[in-house]
Amino acid sequence: MIRLTAGELAAKLGLNCCGPSERVVCGAASLGEAAEEQLAFVGSAKYFEAGRASKAGTVVAPPGYEPAEGQAVIESPQPRAHFAAALGVLYPLTTTAAGVHPAAFVDPTAVVDPTAEIGPGVRIGPNSRIGARTRVLHGTSIGAGVVVGDDCLIYPRASVYDRVLIGSRCVLHSGCVIGADGFGFEFSAGRFHKVPQVGTVEIGDDVEIGANTCVDRAALGVTVIGTGTKLDNMVHIAHNSRIGKHVVIAAQTGLAGGVTIGDYAIVGGQVGVGDKARIESRAVVGSGAGILTSKIVRAGEPVWGTPARPLRQYLAQLATLARLSKRKGGT
Amino acid sequence: MIRLTAGELAAKLGLNCCGPSERVVCGAASLGEAAEEQLAFVGSAKYFEAGRASKAGTVVAPPGYEPAEGQAVIESPQPRAHFAAALGVLYPLTTTAAGVHPAAFVDPTAVVDPTAEIGPGVRIGPNSRIGARTRVLHGTSIGAGVVVGDDCLIYPRASVYDRVLIGSRCVLHSGCVIGADGFGFEFSAGRFHKVPQVGTVEIGDDVEIGANTCVDRAALGVTVIGTGTKLDNMVHIAHNSRIGKHVVIAAQTGLAGGVTIGDYAIVGGQVGVGDKARIESRAVVGSGAGILTSKIVRAGEPVWGTPARPLRQYLAQLATLARLSKRKGGT
Amino acid sequence: MIRLTAGELAAKLGLNCCGPSERVVCGAASLGEAAEEQLAFVGSAKYFEAGRASKAGTVVAPPGYEPAEGQAVIESPQPRAHFAAALGVLYPLTTTAAGVHPAAFVDPTAVVDPTAEIGPGVRIGPNSRIGARTRVLHGTSIGAGVVVGDDCLIYPRASVYDRVLIGSRCVLHSGCVIGADGFGFEFSAGRFHKVPQVGTVEIGDDVEIGANTCVDRAALGVTVIGTGTKLDNMVHIAHNSRIGKHVVIAAQTGLAGGVTIGDYAIVGGQVGVGDKARIESRAVVGSGAGILTSKIVRAGEPVWGTPARPLRQYLAQLATLARLSKRKGGT
Repeated sequence: MIRLTAGELAAKLGLNCCGPSERVVCGAASLGEAAEEQLAFVGSAKYFEAGRASKAGTVVAPPGYEPAEGQAVIESPQPRAHFAAALGVLYPLTTTAAGVHPAAFVDPTAVVDPTAEIGPGVRIGPNSRIGARTRVLHGTSIGAGVVVGDDCLIYPRASVYDRVLIGSRCVLHSGCVIGADGFGFEFSAGRFHKVPQVGTVEIGDDVEIGANTCVDRAALGVTVIGTGTKLDNMVHIAHNSRIGKHVVIAAQTGLAGGVTIGDYAIVGGQVGVGDKARIESRAVVGSGAGILTSKIVRAGEPVWGTPARPLRQYLAQLATLARLSKRKGGT
Repeated sequence: MIRLTAGELAAKLGLNCCGPSERVVCGAASLGEAAEEQLAFVGSAKYFEAGRASKAGTVVAPPGYEPAEGQAVIESPQPRAHFAAALGVLYPLTTTAAGVHPAAFVDPTAVVDPTAEIGPGVRIGPNSRIGARTRVLHGTSIGAGVVVGDDCLIYPRASVYDRVLIGSRCVLHSGCVIGADGFGFEFSAGRFHKVPQVGTVEIGDDVEIGANTCVDRAALGVTVIGTGTKLDNMVHIAHNSRIGKHVVIAAQTGLAGGVTIGDYAIVGGQVGVGDKARIESRAVVGSGAGILTSKIVRAGEPVWGTPARPLRQYLAQLATLARLSKRKGGT
Repeated sequence: MIRLTAGELAAKLGLNCCGPSERVVCGAASLGEAAEEQLAFVGSAKYFEAGRASKAGTVVAPPGYEPAEGQAVIESPQPRAHFAAALGVLYPLTTTAAGVHPAAFVDPTAVVDPTAEIGPGVRIGPNSRIGARTRVLHGTSIGAGVVVGDDCLIYPRASVYDRVLIGSRCVLHSGCVIGADGFGFEFSAGRFHKVPQVGTVEIGDDVEIGANTCVDRAALGVTVIGTGTKLDNMVHIAHNSRIGKHVVIAAQTGLAGGVTIGDYAIVGGQVGVGDKARIESRAVVGSGAGILTSKIVRAGEPVWGTPARPLRQYLAQLATLARLSKRKGGT
């Protein structure tokens, strides 16, 4: 962990420090849990009192905040965002240990940038390419013909199947599986026959993929995850889905095949989306919603429930049911 | 990728080729995305126009299809199935690289067929047996006393616990876990005590297990996955469940303990099935349904919703709720 | 497998054996499936007949049970619990093979107890500590600054990120990921910026974590899993959640950020819990329930449905809907 003064930290953030700028900052915590050498943040005027009651020696706070005695203040119009930036300073990522670990299995036809780090037990298949400063950590499996861009961080024990393309500055967490076969079978003569899944997956830049999340390859063509999109843990993206840019999908949500999601859409956790449904740009889907096959969800009012409907309608129906049930002596 | 002529491909499929049979085929795509050297398929008369508008140089199409100028036609009464077969020709699976990688950890008491492939970092535990031409790829963990049949494909980073039996021609995707302990505890004296899970898992032939899917071992006896059954990604099969033959279960569905599913049943995604429920042969369960403990689901009408009920009943209830809510001015 | 006589087994359990105590016991099964040399149990008077009809040569049974001819009886006031204890005798866990496998990657600054077992392909990061008799099996990834207590069993291919603390006697199944980043982003200037997740995870003693389950690290501070708590497969615990002691959470349940669960609560499978909701001590949440953000669930009546409500209310509403729908000719 880094140790610096409040003044030095403020300077790194391009902000002013008021009060005892020589205070040491070493780590960060919430207002309620911070200790003297830790940084906390006061999000808005609503938290001024909590800020003064906090034991944090240094706080990021908006203009107008009056600190507790002895508290250093790093003044910011956006305390939350600057606090996040401060975390990057206080807890720097481990830097890349350039080079291929002697116990990695790199195919002779693979091209690994000399500034990349390939950890022990990692496999890189034939004709794959790993970009500059990208870290591929312990035990990860990279297939054949895969391209990974620059400055990516692939945590231990991820799986990337053959021919998947991954942009730059992506983060893949442990246990994610990118490019496994789509779930496609033809039924004939009393049994299911596998339809070869010959497409692939393309992942843009700045994408984060959560732990144990699965993105299946397309049957034909590509499954797409757009630039800037963030997937939480255990999300399932089936074959041929196309997710736009800067989309957020919370944990345990599942998309069936051929789903389209527009840019800046927000999808809650445990949502189920049927085949070929379309969630339009900037639409919002509440947690646990179920979206039927081929349904279109538009921007505007968030949708909830199964089958997904506008929030007001969903709430009205819940209220109706409760009222009728009560009137009949149900409860 | 394979390169051949339309005529050669038709011959391999046992079909006729009409038109310019010397056209080169190299890869496949959908009608809308295919390029000149790619194969596409025309599923039925409904797609005749799209077929003629496609840039695909060669199509698999039903009798009666009139091709675009210069388009080769591989005529088939079942274009979809023959297209799937063509994919197998155009994108052959990597052949097995027989032998044990020097960086695999194979117990001296394990028996690996000389035609099998054991990848780097794989572990094969004591007394386990790996069949002919089976591929066990990078980093997979096979416990003790496991039997894997012939011609299986186990992708990187799968886990198979002790004593699990797996048939022939099975496909196990990355991250799946077969044979972990069932979730069994006895509560006494203020805490939970583990009930040793001493049963195992038996998987038939031709089974496919999706990425990150979990099949728990039985408390006593066996958890069974029948021949020909296909499980999608992140499916949870709890201890002592018995799944029949040629069953399909879509992603993120979970079965509690002791569930029975009959042959040819179809279960959608994100379904929850309570303890000891029984889904009968050929029954159909809609995505997102919740099946209560000990409930029996019969073949015939598909069931939907929670608690799961016949589709018509489910739809009628949704309609009633919408109508009542509207009448009361809800929306 | 262990082979002993009914008398010897009874002695190990501190119980009496009636009848032919020289019968061999070698393995266990259910009453319906047991063979002559297997142990089964008769849970209560309800099963007396099944006990007598069973082929089991030895049974654990309550006082008053009259055995079949030639059947040995180990008499117990708590047959189920003593049967579980007998399983531990009949199927002992593999003992620890103390030592570090030559193909493990243990950082020179890590401290591994000489009685611990570190399997092939395992990585232990800088400054981490592994306690006495703990087994870390094939391919598992342990980050930097991690502490694992004594007598833990970590199955192959688990992931533990940096700085996570794990107590003693814990079991971690294959594919679980402990300490991946919480899902935290700040939106500004048209894109999401990662909020560094600088907290960690603390896991108490006697915790069991299911296969492919994910417990995310806190943004700041800690995500806590209390002593004695059991998580089933594919459970998602988001950043900063705090789970009490002796809690049970069934498969595929997901907790959003900052959720609190009190001691001895029971949460079914596929439950979704919104941000900052609180499930109080000894509360019971039915499978598939959806608990809204900031909602408080109290002990007493179990809750069901989405949004979660007391079971009686939920049932009354289902009944109302069914009745109204029928009256209108819906079905």
